Amino acid sequence: MDELVVGVLGGTGPQGRGLAVRLAAVGQRVLLGSRDADRAGEVAAQVAGRAAAAVGGEVVVQGGVSVQGGSNTDVAGAADLVVVAVPFAGHAAPLAELAAPLAGKVVVDCVVPMGFDELGAHVLDVPEGSVAQQAAALLPDSAVVGAFHHVSAVLLEDLSRPTLDGDVLVVGDDRAATDTVQALAGRLPGMRGVHAGRLRNARQVEALTVNLVSVNRRYGAHTGIRVTDV
Amino acid sequence: MDELVVGVLGGTGPQGRGLAVRLAAVGQRVLLGSRDADRAGEVAAQVAGRAAAAVGGEVVVQGGVSVQGGSNTDVAGAADLVVVAVPFAGHAAPLAELAAPLAGKVVVDCVVPMGFDELGAHVLDVPEGSVAQQAAALLPDSAVVGAFHHVSAVLLEDLSRPTLDGDVLVVGDDRAATDTVQALAGRLPGMRGVHAGRLRNARQVEALTVNLVSVNRRYGAHTGIRVTDV
Repeated sequence: MDELVVGVLGGTGPQGRGLAVRLAAVGQRVLLGSRDADRAGEVAAQVAGRAAAAVGGEVVVQGGVSVQGGSNTDVAGAADLVVVAVPFAGHAAPLAELAAPLAGKVVVDCVVPMGFDELGAHVLDVPEGSVAQQAAALLPDSAVVGAFHHVSAVLLEDLSRPTLDGDVLVVGDDRAATDTVQALAGRLPGMRGVHAGRLRNARQVEALTVNLVSVNRRYGAHTGIRVTDV
Repeated sequence: MDELVVGVLGGTGPQGRGLAVRLAAVGQRVLLGSRDADRAGEVAAQVAGRAAAAVGGEVVVQGGVSVQGGSNTDVAGAADLVVVAVPFAGHAAPLAELAAPLAGKVVVDCVVPMGFDELGAHVLDVPEGSVAQQAAALLPDSAVVGAFHHVSAVLLEDLSRPTLDGDVLVVGDDRAATDTVQALAGRLPGMRGVHAGRLRNARQVEALTVNLVSVNRRYGAHTGIRVTDV
């Protein structure tokens, strides 16, 4: 699946940047999107440099590292598969504007509806039930999949760790799309994509990230999850 | 913590019976409750026999195996700590009646708000936000903790497997209570109790069980989860 061009909307944020660098380091062609195309270009150059350095180290890539930056709109149009890694507060409005370029594509939403108050992290209400369902409502002609919520951005970006430790729970209603996303997740070293149900069961997958953040704070860790017995 | 008497409400169901037999097999004194005290007595005798046989095998227990049956009301009154393992449909009404005997105690809720339709498993709405929060609302003088949602009843009951594989996510607002439940979870061979946040974040922990059921169906497994990096 090297030939699959992966776009990352919100690719200058920690989660998007982390996914971009890890995918680039295994030879996936990546388009890194941001509202600010210039900023996207700068971060894409950094990501490409870090991925290439990792390739020169422990990782071997056929065909080299390719990361290019652009506006979210350009990336949505040019990529084969698009990962949505924007902040939750900026999720609905930009996606609504990208329905046309995203039509017919697999859209992978990893956005978590999380807020913080004096008691710590908590789940924000999403009228559609989950962020992934919100994306599906806004992108009626795309195959929306929820995934990559539980992968620590810190560990994604830390290429000194050649392998990660965790499973990617993949939820969605389109079997071909979830198959693709499971395969993409499986390219991250040490990770697996596990099909974890339909889109109507995305809410708790997204929201569990809030609990992992609580664990991180209590235990000083960068947690993920593994599904046992599979 | 051998001296802690653990009551299991709904102890004749799969999850309650599985927790009872595993806890008994590591020397925890268990009171097994049911609406039908006679039925509770029968199941308690079976559970005691199976736990004792396991002890004679791979497990070593100081002080022997002790499992006794009784009505949910009697068990709620006699136990030091009470696990609620009743069906979700029979959760609110019985708990409301047990507020007095459960006052001052740790109440561990492992009930999952799950329904099934032609598309598979889905999450049922709980007006209080989660089953654990419902219990907390009904039991204002108890320390309510959510835990043991993700432990497969099938694996709990299969004592031919000496160790289990998974973490118990423990959510609650009373630190002494969550400490106790984490320690209790840690008595199950191969398991750990991991503090996973406040009670307001119980919903997604409960609901994730729906996704695990989807994984079980797809992969023919009895899944649980592990938290990585802790």
